[in-house]
Amino acid sequence: MYNVKILGSGSYLPKNKVTSEELDKRLGLQIGTSKKISHVNERYYVKDETAIDMAFFAVEKALNDANIKKEDIDLIVSASGVYHQPIPCNASLLQEKLGLTKVPCFDVNTTCLSFLSALEVVSPLIHIGKYKNVLVFSADIASVGIDYNDLKSCLLFGDGASAFILSKSDCDSQVISSYFETHSEGVHSTEIIGGGNHIHSRECAKRPNDFLFSMKGRDIAELTFKKLPNFFEKCFGGKSVVEFCSNVDLIIPHQSSDKALRYSQVLFGFPEEKFVNEIEKYGNMISASIPFLLDKSIKENRIKRGDNILLLGTGAGLSLGMVYLKY
Amino acid sequence: MYNVKILGSGSYLPKNKVTSEELDKRLGLQIGTSKKISHVNERYYVKDETAIDMAFFAVEKALNDANIKKEDIDLIVSASGVYHQPIPCNASLLQEKLGLTKVPCFDVNTTCLSFLSALEVVSPLIHIGKYKNVLVFSADIASVGIDYNDLKSCLLFGDGASAFILSKSDCDSQVISSYFETHSEGVHSTEIIGGGNHIHSRECAKRPNDFLFSMKGRDIAELTFKKLPNFFEKCFGGKSVVEFCSNVDLIIPHQSSDKALRYSQVLFGFPEEKFVNEIEKYGNMISASIPFLLDKSIKENRIKRGDNILLLGTGAGLSLGMVYLKY
Repeated sequence: MYNVKILGSGSYLPKNKVTSEELDKRLGLQIGTSKKISHVNERYYVKDETAIDMAFFAVEKALNDANIKKEDIDLIVSASGVYHQPIPCNASLLQEKLGLTKVPCFDVNTTCLSFLSALEVVSPLIHIGKYKNVLVFSADIASVGIDYNDLKSCLLFGDGASAFILSKSDCDSQVISSYFETHSEGVHSTEIIGGGNHIHSRECAKRPNDFLFSMKGRDIAELTFKKLPNFFEKCFGGKSVVEFCSNVDLIIPHQSSDKALRYSQVLFGFPEEKFVNEIEKYGNMISASIPFLLDKSIKENRIKRGDNILLLGTGAGLSLGMVYLKY
Repeated sequence: MYNVKILGSGSYLPKNKVTSEELDKRLGLQIGTSKKISHVNERYYVKDETAIDMAFFAVEKALNDANIKKEDIDLIVSASGVYHQPIPCNASLLQEKLGLTKVPCFDVNTTCLSFLSALEVVSPLIHIGKYKNVLVFSADIASVGIDYNDLKSCLLFGDGASAFILSKSDCDSQVISSYFETHSEGVHSTEIIGGGNHIHSRECAKRPNDFLFSMKGRDIAELTFKKLPNFFEKCFGGKSVVEFCSNVDLIIPHQSSDKALRYSQVLFGFPEEKFVNEIEKYGNMISASIPFLLDKSIKENRIKRGDNILLLGTGAGLSLGMVYLKY
């Protein structure tokens, strides 16, 4: 349990909204096909925005919401799934954009789960008073690395960013508990293999598909649903999902896919009215999905101070994560 | 102050040792030129090893040194400067190679400073007992992204890996203090701009130089030496370097360049006999430099239990970092 409070938050969606009908036309599909396959109506693709631009706009809103100045930030943590550029880290690139200096910066990465991993590492640092106002941001551009020949994955994703200011709690706001697992049996089921130091970008012309996102949907779904029962048992200290969720006010799962969300909601008995599924409107925004919906739920008053919020994530790895907090 | 102990460590150098004479020949330079420019005699370049392979070999030694089984590891953190592949994170790729499952994985990145940032985030988690045996590894391959047209940078770097097992201290071993700064005025002075979601690998054929490491040596040196006096003042709580170092047994700085190391040792008055500079033999190993020399100094009995060790780093960003620990 950590005395950590969400002081403020903000998000950014790219200017360019892309409907499934537009994707049908772009991909030469019969109208209705993209929606039918993905259950995503709309998603946003960057036009001229970079991930750092998106993060910057989200941070401006978060600072305003937190009612602090940017100079009050004393740690900047990127919790994004993919880097803007290989060197240096995303956080220092955002620091430059914010016009700040001296503030320590680092990136935390577990792909779609990065925001939860960032909460895991910054919460104790805030609790003990090492840092006062920590900026955590998730900004991802899926649209640049999508394989448009793979209809199972390419229709799912959208771009976006979200930012949170976290501080020591002066009320009963808390990060109550957290739990993580990575099951590397699934490490090759969702990946981009080219672009790091293993397969350098100079190979891209020869093997372009290795530089796009590849997802073995059935494999990763099977592994996830095999691992989730035991994972939930650990998360909830042996309590059943139903029992644990009777005390939870809102559940924000990573927006992996509509099918996976609906299936797990029913299978494990998550109360439907508390289980946020907005993938229809935004798609899977990689690391930004969870913080985006957390921010949105706060802004829409679906979350009030004192509410118990369960953040649940799945990500490439295969990684599973949970952060339970009192807002 | 955190009750954290280094339980064991290990390192790996690639099979292929590359002398400066070999580089002279390869680059068509007069014999002696590479050594004269870089002050590096030898460095190691991967042949068929990946960063994950290197990390694996380092971890095997660290586990043996720590006298624990791989199954005892309950958190895996990559503290590498560049990723093996964009998705998923390095830590989960290493987990697969280790034949483990379920162990949580994430990456921490501040380029050359990543090992220090990882210590910053895992130390409180170990101190409070959240994780028992944490594996932190740094594995970097510089040789794949070097610009051989830039003699000022290309001769400097070498590849390598190092791994540490960290546990709760049962003696007076501690992480005593730490301090970090990032000065984004220097964010574009050391970078690789292509290969992330800003400039996708598919652009590499058109602009290959953007996918190689670029260093504005003079700019980054000027900024670093402008920021270091104030940084050291914060690190040492107002004490002078000389005064603080009278209690320090060994100082391990990031091996940025021989010139920078020698200049700062003299300028700030670090005691020469306590100041580790082995860049001649290994070059700048990016994130692996600090943990590699820490492991080596332990193995060579330059560090004994109870010794006060000062780890100092500079990295792209421009990031500065310090971790002070009692071994």
